[in-house]
Amino acid sequence: MDGDTRDDGDAALLAAAHAAADAARAPCLERFRQSTLAADDKAEASGRFDPVTAADRAAEIAMRAVLARLRPGDAVMGEEHAPTPGDTGFTWVLDPIDGTRSYMSGAPTWGVLVALNDGVRPVIGLIDQPFTGERFEGLVRGGRATASWTRGAEKRALRTRPCAALSDATLFTTYPEVGTAAEQAGFNAVRDHVRLTRYGLDCYAYALLAMGCVDLVIEAGLQPYDVQALIPVIEGAGGVITGWRGEDCQQGGRVVAAGDAALHAAALEILSRV
Amino acid sequence: MDGDTRDDGDAALLAAAHAAADAARAPCLERFRQSTLAADDKAEASGRFDPVTAADRAAEIAMRAVLARLRPGDAVMGEEHAPTPGDTGFTWVLDPIDGTRSYMSGAPTWGVLVALNDGVRPVIGLIDQPFTGERFEGLVRGGRATASWTRGAEKRALRTRPCAALSDATLFTTYPEVGTAAEQAGFNAVRDHVRLTRYGLDCYAYALLAMGCVDLVIEAGLQPYDVQALIPVIEGAGGVITGWRGEDCQQGGRVVAAGDAALHAAALEILSRV
Repeated sequence: MDGDTRDDGDAALLAAAHAAADAARAPCLERFRQSTLAADDKAEASGRFDPVTAADRAAEIAMRAVLARLRPGDAVMGEEHAPTPGDTGFTWVLDPIDGTRSYMSGAPTWGVLVALNDGVRPVIGLIDQPFTGERFEGLVRGGRATASWTRGAEKRALRTRPCAALSDATLFTTYPEVGTAAEQAGFNAVRDHVRLTRYGLDCYAYALLAMGCVDLVIEAGLQPYDVQALIPVIEGAGGVITGWRGEDCQQGGRVVAAGDAALHAAALEILSRV
Repeated sequence: MDGDTRDDGDAALLAAAHAAADAARAPCLERFRQSTLAADDKAEASGRFDPVTAADRAAEIAMRAVLARLRPGDAVMGEEHAPTPGDTGFTWVLDPIDGTRSYMSGAPTWGVLVALNDGVRPVIGLIDQPFTGERFEGLVRGGRATASWTRGAEKRALRTRPCAALSDATLFTTYPEVGTAAEQAGFNAVRDHVRLTRYGLDCYAYALLAMGCVDLVIEAGLQPYDVQALIPVIEGAGGVITGWRGEDCQQGGRVVAAGDAALHAAALEILSRV
């Protein structure tokens, strides 16, 4: 399959991605908003509150089982379990629950992230929200770049909206405290130019950017599994997503996504000084 | 109807409240996530960004039409239109879209708020989220105090969770910038004691508190229509909601809601100094 750019190849890969996301829904929803929800603290030693739930682990196991069946030769990298090597050149990158704090708080703004990396870049990305039943899909492969939203029988193409100026932009980030002191200062410098800043949506903010409802998302300290699924969704919808110096961001770190390339350039001009 | 505390009186009042919330759903959803969404700026002169959408106005008109038919003698007070006087002693307090910024950003965390005030206090409150299809209902009247959540055919009782200590609490507020400088300092003093602080959910944070997913919500600068529907939902679920000095908060202003009375007292001890 490596290097296969035919449409039927895309269809098989997309089908596997959707099957994996489907498998995550039940384990995630079973434990959502249950008062018995047990969280332990992955980063207890560092003093940082980073809850990992049984749902997170069960959802990754369910996704891995599907991929082992449908795509046995592919590598798998997930947030919760050890990497599985492969021999096809493809790697699945999974974040079973992106936004564990939203999940723990009962807010329907966390997401299941499924990405397929072809060894060069993520070529398929899914952002799934099991509670609302929404799925945001992006495909950037073999000259194709598309993105769509589905919710049950409803389907629409995703397309970012024009917004060239920071002064017209709606900006999202997950926490008001963004990364290091220098990163915080860079973020604040952009924030001071935009029309509206909002907090707290994790991956869902990128999904809303792809939908044309939000103009700019800026974060720091991301992991590869936090960002790989977002890239095809944003790019497939016509947006731009890079690091703060315009570099490839598939390894995570500092990320800036914009619906409009001119807005992305305006944000980069400020952020690249950090 | 004034002073009617029989169950059948409650049932008729609840039916009218639900009919009003039902009527708001279509006008809200028709315009949700539409790129043609037009926002003007109610507070343009003050320089504050406060979008009011066509959806906001259309939803209030739809709710008022239902109430004029089902409860012709009741007064109506809404965010968007002039008050309607009544002669029954009951006043409906409506906020067609609480969380207009969430609405404009496409996030499913805004809500339609419907409250019924008996002249002394809000006795019925509904928090409706048309996109997720969720409705949070509270009734505090004639010795009854109940709250429930429905989504289509699903229904469950709402019950806050025990959490007596600030150090165990999840705190929500809508913006990191909370009210005046003094109010901000009071909020920050509480924030510095809690386990986790999250931003951005508007009325939905109070709904999640009633559901036992969140422990504490603190805000300032609220209007009566922002808070009246929340009071029966929080109290019906076993929580406490007051002003920052423990006073009645139905007129808005500074509000602190907690799922556990001991936690509410701990937060008040800090906030009452403001």
